[in-house]
Amino acid sequence: MNPGIVYGLGLGPGAADLMSVRADRLLRAARHVAYFRKAGRPGQARRIVEGLIPAGAAEHPMDYPVTTEIPLDDPRYNATLSAFYERCAARLRSLAEAGADVVVLCEGDPFLYGSFMHLHARLAGVVPVQVVPGIPGMSAAWTASGQPITWGDDVLTVLPGTLPEDRLTAAIRAADAVVVMKIGRHLPRLRRALAAAGRAEAAVLVEYAAMPEERVTPLADYPGDHAPYFSIALVHGQGRRP
Amino acid sequence: MNPGIVYGLGLGPGAADLMSVRADRLLRAARHVAYFRKAGRPGQARRIVEGLIPAGAAEHPMDYPVTTEIPLDDPRYNATLSAFYERCAARLRSLAEAGADVVVLCEGDPFLYGSFMHLHARLAGVVPVQVVPGIPGMSAAWTASGQPITWGDDVLTVLPGTLPEDRLTAAIRAADAVVVMKIGRHLPRLRRALAAAGRAEAAVLVEYAAMPEERVTPLADYPGDHAPYFSIALVHGQGRRP
Repeated sequence: MNPGIVYGLGLGPGAADLMSVRADRLLRAARHVAYFRKAGRPGQARRIVEGLIPAGAAEHPMDYPVTTEIPLDDPRYNATLSAFYERCAARLRSLAEAGADVVVLCEGDPFLYGSFMHLHARLAGVVPVQVVPGIPGMSAAWTASGQPITWGDDVLTVLPGTLPEDRLTAAIRAADAVVVMKIGRHLPRLRRALAAAGRAEAAVLVEYAAMPEERVTPLADYPGDHAPYFSIALVHGQGRRP
Repeated sequence: MNPGIVYGLGLGPGAADLMSVRADRLLRAARHVAYFRKAGRPGQARRIVEGLIPAGAAEHPMDYPVTTEIPLDDPRYNATLSAFYERCAARLRSLAEAGADVVVLCEGDPFLYGSFMHLHARLAGVVPVQVVPGIPGMSAAWTASGQPITWGDDVLTVLPGTLPEDRLTAAIRAADAVVVMKIGRHLPRLRRALAAAGRAEAAVLVEYAAMPEERVTPLADYPGDHAPYFSIALVHGQGRRP
């Protein structure tokens, strides 16, 4: 028997019609659909495809055993997640080895800060794996902002908001255009880094890009010390333009 | 009469089925389709949508008056391009003011190093303009490479290969993951910058990502001093992974 294919399906930023035609076709023909979610929540990836999964397809939710309960630098964090990804990969592997194709739903683009890469690292070379790229969340964020992120020869740097403050500051200072992902409770540190780099007034916060709750706010006017999970901060490049 | 809408339609990296469902629907219903191209060439954006433009739709090619004939730092370059974009914007504006929707084909994502932004800057606030994001060429490049571009807290920097060598070197040194666009005849300078930053052995060159001619080569093995227009160099991040 030929093994099935495990597809890492980039769903794009959050609107179902921003999925690629290829992803849409694969999804509508799927017999097995897997997705990550926080335990007890429906999961954002699953939410995007609501109404598109064929009747009778088997769903395989993969519940994160931990999100923010254990600090990232605690060795138990890596050990717990590693065991979790091993279990998920084994489950997908056995489906593929039994001849079934499996579609794994991935928010944004699977190979840009996504959880699917941890399955890919365990399955590539073992069973057939194909990745379908998706529109990254950051593309939807700069589209929502109404301004191009880069002009001419602008340098664009994409930063996780989880970085130490000095590294954030240095990277913001060196770049023309900046995207900051994974902000959450790290917002006060990001504000300090932007101010130290002289870019605080230029930054905007985009919440829920491409979703019904989409909102764009100058970061200086954004209240509070916490941004929702689906938030991206932007500093637009100002390069050469004819 | 209500004005028409000018759509900046992100087509994605080059395969028609990597266009979003939204872009596909807008294109298949289009009555006016505009696109940039090098004079005398069919144009990459137009090539991507071959067979998808409805019969009877009017096509509006916009032929660049100059590409590499005048150096970027010659004032005539900016003046020539500026006048060109003004003419193109006026043409789209008159269509929209006559009530017609116009779809402008954009390779990749319209707001990431695209020519559409020069029309957007001239039309936004004058007639209705809507941008449909697309999968950036770089997403297809790292997908083609078979490896995630970023892990964990990796910093990703996107660089135009047209930058001076010292700036390339510093940016490559500071980043975990690197994408270099617009390489062309600047390949020898990029090689020197990568070597100076200690990353020459880690770099790959992806040509024609998501197109039939797609090819991935370690940059150290890539012959010659010139990369084709549709080439992107990558250095993958190697960050934390459970």
